Amino acid sequence: MAEEKDVLILVCNDDGVTAPGIRALTEVAKKFGKTIVVAPDKPQSGMGHAITINATLRINQHTTKDGVEIFSTTGTPVDCVKLAVNEILDRKPDLVISGINHGSNASTNVIYSGTMSAAIEGCLEGIPSIGFSLCDHSIDADFEASKVFAEKIIEQVLENGLERGVCLNVNIPKLSLDAIAGIKVCRQADANWTEEFDKRTDPSGNPYYWLTGKFENFDTGEDTDLHAIQNGYVSVVPVQYDMTAYNFLANLKKYKF
Amino acid sequence: MAEEKDVLILVCNDDGVTAPGIRALTEVAKKFGKTIVVAPDKPQSGMGHAITINATLRINQHTTKDGVEIFSTTGTPVDCVKLAVNEILDRKPDLVISGINHGSNASTNVIYSGTMSAAIEGCLEGIPSIGFSLCDHSIDADFEASKVFAEKIIEQVLENGLERGVCLNVNIPKLSLDAIAGIKVCRQADANWTEEFDKRTDPSGNPYYWLTGKFENFDTGEDTDLHAIQNGYVSVVPVQYDMTAYNFLANLKKYKF
Repeated sequence: MAEEKDVLILVCNDDGVTAPGIRALTEVAKKFGKTIVVAPDKPQSGMGHAITINATLRINQHTTKDGVEIFSTTGTPVDCVKLAVNEILDRKPDLVISGINHGSNASTNVIYSGTMSAAIEGCLEGIPSIGFSLCDHSIDADFEASKVFAEKIIEQVLENGLERGVCLNVNIPKLSLDAIAGIKVCRQADANWTEEFDKRTDPSGNPYYWLTGKFENFDTGEDTDLHAIQNGYVSVVPVQYDMTAYNFLANLKKYKF
Repeated sequence: MAEEKDVLILVCNDDGVTAPGIRALTEVAKKFGKTIVVAPDKPQSGMGHAITINATLRINQHTTKDGVEIFSTTGTPVDCVKLAVNEILDRKPDLVISGINHGSNASTNVIYSGTMSAAIEGCLEGIPSIGFSLCDHSIDADFEASKVFAEKIIEQVLENGLERGVCLNVNIPKLSLDAIAGIKVCRQADANWTEEFDKRTDPSGNPYYWLTGKFENFDTGEDTDLHAIQNGYVSVVPVQYDMTAYNFLANLKKYKF
């Protein structure tokens, strides 16, 4: 990798610029080239692919650390990628990496996840992009094993590239390095959240709601990300932003519109 | 349609409960059965699939109009669908319809769109769901042609259902009824936004940014939604929440992870 010093890597996340997970991912990124962090100034979990269109955005530059320039923005994870690519960076980065998220983004969580939406936005910009998540919500989560696997996966993506329109969703089980069985390429499991709200009463006697719920896997396939993680593997799902249901096109054309 | 009075329809949007577009869609829905509106209490355009996980939610019931119960919530479009299905309604609706959006949600806009995210959330709940958008951002947009096509499409979906995991993204060109060429089933065009920010200086001399940009179509295919709309057709794209890039799985398995 003689040319590694020319590699430009953008690091983003949805847990905010100060989260331990993004610090862990930045340490890995630095091994491959020039690293710039552009991340939300506050937690933005569950923001999906939200963008800020009815309000203004700010960019704040933090102290440069070990050669890594760090910026926070007042926007969503997707705003961060857009601001980085269009305002902060002089050229398109060679790689966008997002995370390491504190908590799983496997299965249909990809669609709610700010971490994965940042990666998908990188992909929309035509940049090879990867989202990393550790299946541990704790602020004190141990990212040591995640760093080892993130390095392996980044190395392969820099070497082989990714197809236009495809990024990766990587989920790492909450296990020590020697307990992890390896890496498995998977499809997204068909799972979803059930029992969604905790209804409470405020001091004035009026109801309010907390989103809650249980994640349930309805998918018995052994080729899914959830199955891989449950069996101790790091799951890697290729994700595309083209949401066309190609398999249903022929059927839909038979409808009498 | 002898059983039409038993049909339960949930109407949502992202422009907010008072937008003319949702009133137009509600008028159409009423023809097919019992209609309930659950929509954001303020504009939520560009919210993508965002959910509210670090704050509480409220539900407000408005005056019932012509038998249609109307609720607003403090949440995102996806929150509205979750609150409707889990808290407000006694049973799962037979159809979720979202819109009519003031502005196009064709092509990759599906991923940024609160309107389409509400439909996708309905789909995640296993309910046939459709998002409708008129290619006219104006608050005074004329929804007459849109209503005619929405009725045709809703009728076909109630009659034929949709496959599990698939919802519809319908975009109506800004044309009078007699100028619209018909309905075309399409795939999502590969297009994106370029030149993204308008940088300004505040009265204190500090920079701030407005997200802006131009939508550019890089896709020359004649089977896309953008091509259909440009040629005067209503586009109907089947959309799936499974974002796995199946065509890339075999290639990715060759990477030396």
